[in-house]
Amino acid sequence: MSSTIHTDICVIGAGPVGLFSVFEAGLLKMRCHVVDVLPQVGGQLTEIYPKKPIYDIPGLPEIKAFELIANLMKQIGPFHPTFTLGEKVIEVQRDENSWVVTTSDETNIHAKVIVIAAGLGCFEPRKPEIENLEKFEGRGIVYMVKDPELFRDKRLIIAGGGDSALDWTIHLADIAESITLIHRNDSFRGAPDSAEKVHTLAKEGRIDLILNASLLEAKGNGVLKSVTYKTTSETSRDLTADYLIPLFGLSPKLGPIADWGLQLHKNAIAVNTFDYSTNVPGIFAIGDINTYPGKLKLILSGFHEAALMSQSAFRYVYPDQKLSFKYTTVNGIPSF
Amino acid sequence: MSSTIHTDICVIGAGPVGLFSVFEAGLLKMRCHVVDVLPQVGGQLTEIYPKKPIYDIPGLPEIKAFELIANLMKQIGPFHPTFTLGEKVIEVQRDENSWVVTTSDETNIHAKVIVIAAGLGCFEPRKPEIENLEKFEGRGIVYMVKDPELFRDKRLIIAGGGDSALDWTIHLADIAESITLIHRNDSFRGAPDSAEKVHTLAKEGRIDLILNASLLEAKGNGVLKSVTYKTTSETSRDLTADYLIPLFGLSPKLGPIADWGLQLHKNAIAVNTFDYSTNVPGIFAIGDINTYPGKLKLILSGFHEAALMSQSAFRYVYPDQKLSFKYTTVNGIPSF
Repeated sequence: MSSTIHTDICVIGAGPVGLFSVFEAGLLKMRCHVVDVLPQVGGQLTEIYPKKPIYDIPGLPEIKAFELIANLMKQIGPFHPTFTLGEKVIEVQRDENSWVVTTSDETNIHAKVIVIAAGLGCFEPRKPEIENLEKFEGRGIVYMVKDPELFRDKRLIIAGGGDSALDWTIHLADIAESITLIHRNDSFRGAPDSAEKVHTLAKEGRIDLILNASLLEAKGNGVLKSVTYKTTSETSRDLTADYLIPLFGLSPKLGPIADWGLQLHKNAIAVNTFDYSTNVPGIFAIGDINTYPGKLKLILSGFHEAALMSQSAFRYVYPDQKLSFKYTTVNGIPSF
Repeated sequence: MSSTIHTDICVIGAGPVGLFSVFEAGLLKMRCHVVDVLPQVGGQLTEIYPKKPIYDIPGLPEIKAFELIANLMKQIGPFHPTFTLGEKVIEVQRDENSWVVTTSDETNIHAKVIVIAAGLGCFEPRKPEIENLEKFEGRGIVYMVKDPELFRDKRLIIAGGGDSALDWTIHLADIAESITLIHRNDSFRGAPDSAEKVHTLAKEGRIDLILNASLLEAKGNGVLKSVTYKTTSETSRDLTADYLIPLFGLSPKLGPIADWGLQLHKNAIAVNTFDYSTNVPGIFAIGDINTYPGKLKLILSGFHEAALMSQSAFRYVYPDQKLSFKYTTVNGIPSF
């Protein structure tokens, strides 16, 4: 069943930056339709770390990720954005005087401007090569910690040597019944102070640390019961566990975005610094998915990018119209 | 009585952007000392419009200006910034390997980096040329509306034809006992829809509108009692009033900042887009006082500029040290 939508701006990505671009576009009276492959708004913030506090949003000393998204949804409310959620963008075509964005469910979004705010794109967790992996995915093997409470009083095996593995080992040490951290060599890639904390936890007997070891097999009976691993010095061993959490990072996949003729640089979309436009007129890229000299992958930078992008998008959509820049403090929000 | 302070970064300007730069510098373990000519933190937000709601801070659908400043003060608390308030920066000199910022009260701040976040600089309201103006300043003549409640049930004369005059006339129409808006010609410079609202208020008899008129004299007895004005068509008239609010805009004065050899462009400091550095190594400019291609004078842009500036300031201060960029979501705030 196909459907057709007409709008000023099609925003790809419903994360914080995509959502805030609805606000900035709205101030200039441009309507937005937002598409996301995830079934809910918020991007990584609701999908990966909804309960984690964020400290670096200016003016919000501490806010949980899902609360920030709720605030942004409230903030863009006056501009009545529309959404297509749970559908993947599979094609972008140039119509006579607009773009047509087509999703996996045959939704066709006609827009004058496309704003790509797709974060890490169609990112996927990097998976270890072990036997029976797929069999226990969602049945004891998880690749992201969404709610730490899921692991209260459980026996966990965390695998990996980067910041995620270290940070979650530290964080969950007080929550889980037991944690075994398995890493394939004896030095961690993560922050030195985190590595030091993990070693201290191991010395205090609060976690088990198995270095120079690799995972071999997941075992169980419908749900995960144990994990087999092997160290360089000995034969394989079985370790009882309720959960195996492999934290080998995310593998950014731009997916179809990589095929649209956009200039890429290191898996990110290269943009102009003054308006975050791409090399394709009418397509902008903001937030974690873009790159430019000095780029920092911060939510607050994406917000700024959304503001500058909107000015330029306005001039692209209405080349003959005067842009009147007004402060909301003076005029409030001109909803529509 | 002179005093000497040593710090990593001297931030000139305690407005929202200056305050947030303490946070971003703090994440990189750089200490800040903040100077402002005003006796309290917050810049324009606390000085000019503390009770006005702001709608465009991302993640804060509506917040009063003074509340935003309170939030920012809380957010930078862990980094223990120090302040010199109520003192004007009068000189900046280069010491052997640091800058020395000297204030009107002979405070000497030695810093490796200077961050100018001085907003409109030492801005001043533009004053009308009328008799007895200075005599009644603060005694009936005010140049800024800080708290609208001050004007409840009072008889006001507002003078001016720009957005401020129009907006405050509209806003105060429900609060004041009476408002007379005096403007020197018959067309307003402010937004057309605001001008329309003012004309409607006049038609409905809710305000008095006197066009093609100029102010001549303030009269009173210790406090303002009346204002004399003259229209082109008639002789002068006296108008009884509790307050005269001349709103002729602010006159930006960069003050001493203009003398430090910084490259200026239209009364703003020209900066690089990738780190907001000026043409003088070790001096950065962020927020409303800087300019670059695409610049928007938004608080949220100043926040972004503070983040990118801090990275570059770190490399300037510690050329041999590796900068480890970490997300606060993962590590929290490393206070010191």
